[in-house]
Amino acid sequence: GVEQAARAAGYRLLLSSMDLNAQYGEDVFKDLSGRRIDALIVMGAIVDQSPTAQEILARSLQRGLPIVELSDRPQQDPRVDCVLADYRAATTAAMVHLLELGHLRIGLVFGAPLEMGVDRLTPYRTSLAAAGLPVAPELIVDCGPTIEDGYQAARQLLALPERPTAILAINDLLAIGVLRAAGDLGLHVPADLSVVGFDDIDVARYLAPRLTTSAKDAVHLGREAVRLALQRIQNPALPRQVVHVPTQFVVRESTGPAPETGANQK
Amino acid sequence: GVEQAARAAGYRLLLSSMDLNAQYGEDVFKDLSGRRIDALIVMGAIVDQSPTAQEILARSLQRGLPIVELSDRPQQDPRVDCVLADYRAATTAAMVHLLELGHLRIGLVFGAPLEMGVDRLTPYRTSLAAAGLPVAPELIVDCGPTIEDGYQAARQLLALPERPTAILAINDLLAIGVLRAAGDLGLHVPADLSVVGFDDIDVARYLAPRLTTSAKDAVHLGREAVRLALQRIQNPALPRQVVHVPTQFVVRESTGPAPETGANQK
Repeated sequence: GVEQAARAAGYRLLLSSMDLNAQYGEDVFKDLSGRRIDALIVMGAIVDQSPTAQEILARSLQRGLPIVELSDRPQQDPRVDCVLADYRAATTAAMVHLLELGHLRIGLVFGAPLEMGVDRLTPYRTSLAAAGLPVAPELIVDCGPTIEDGYQAARQLLALPERPTAILAINDLLAIGVLRAAGDLGLHVPADLSVVGFDDIDVARYLAPRLTTSAKDAVHLGREAVRLALQRIQNPALPRQVVHVPTQFVVRESTGPAPETGANQK
Repeated sequence: GVEQAARAAGYRLLLSSMDLNAQYGEDVFKDLSGRRIDALIVMGAIVDQSPTAQEILARSLQRGLPIVELSDRPQQDPRVDCVLADYRAATTAAMVHLLELGHLRIGLVFGAPLEMGVDRLTPYRTSLAAAGLPVAPELIVDCGPTIEDGYQAARQLLALPERPTAILAINDLLAIGVLRAAGDLGLHVPADLSVVGFDDIDVARYLAPRLTTSAKDAVHLGREAVRLALQRIQNPALPRQVVHVPTQFVVRESTGPAPETGANQK
């Protein structure tokens, strides 16, 4: 989306990945913001989490560099325009869906820095509370971001004396690990276990079973980020803009009624 | 791999994607090769296919810019160092595996420009010929690069009057589409149909069934590309280097004996 919109407006895109490690992310951010560029679009936890990155951000803004953040919550610095894909409503929809299907023990596989997933964690908690259900700490597993992390987190959840009948994974890759863990334990999805992901990555609708998930329109998010950047270039004095791009809960085949026989029959 | 090795050597990485379309790829290539950079690592069909890109390549080499190509076959210009991941041996291994399992009709889902997949197409043909089997044109389906393209190609193959008992897809994404198509037709993998992919992407070993595929060590490929670029920077007069990085055929769960009842029982 960024590439399409930038090109359409006659701009070139320089990409940098900040993912290798925190120090690397800071260096890349510093390097990129110091180049002769017209605007900077940033995404990634490092920008929020690292004091060094926050300093670079502040200095770049002071120099008048337009900066737009793509995130799941607004950047603290009020000079940064933001495009937000917020999974709050979609998570609530997912929880309502599972609760209506009779699930009382719903696990959460949380493979992200806490700052990045509050839009999923908070509605998970509040939906349970609203349904009069306890938020059992053992049902929330912190883990890394890989498929294998999702797999191991699910193994941990499914080994509980009272195992969950549904698992929410905060992204689709983790959910793929959950599906595989269920399969390896001889559990059928969704008959024995319901699984929900987030992001609706390309592969989600081709899995067996097709994954129930929530979609953000990533191309649209990218286009919006360029739109805000262009407006900022043309008019540096514009008031801050924060654009919310809606997300959508998509029911497919990986969720179904809670097993009637209870959680510990298998 | 590129990022790790470049950083370790004190270099920064500027990334550009050339994928949007051919014209865009040419523009990006021109822009990047004109920047103040120490070396250029290129991958992607556009560099081989576009006369414009070939011109830019030649001019950049003339200016003394070290260029390394990551590819599946050597760049024609003898001044370009190459890191090659060649699926030739792995494809032959995959074909031997399928032939030993008794498969006589093996489909090929070919979702790439012909220039990019000869390392898979040629051994497919020669392995069939070596086994005394015909290379049936209807068993080779050209298609686009997406999962959906793989899905549609498999639907086409599986609708043949004499359908294949095994399908080779030239990458794992296409193979995921093939798995889904088989499932939608009520075919069990591998009992009714064997499926083979290429690349061993992260998700391959978590699919149900786990995908039989061939792996190239992408991180190693990236590191090698940086190593060649650094050598070229230090010694521009060095003879051309072409490094072959081996690939490996990995048998998992998506391949099995050809159905005894023949190809048309279901």
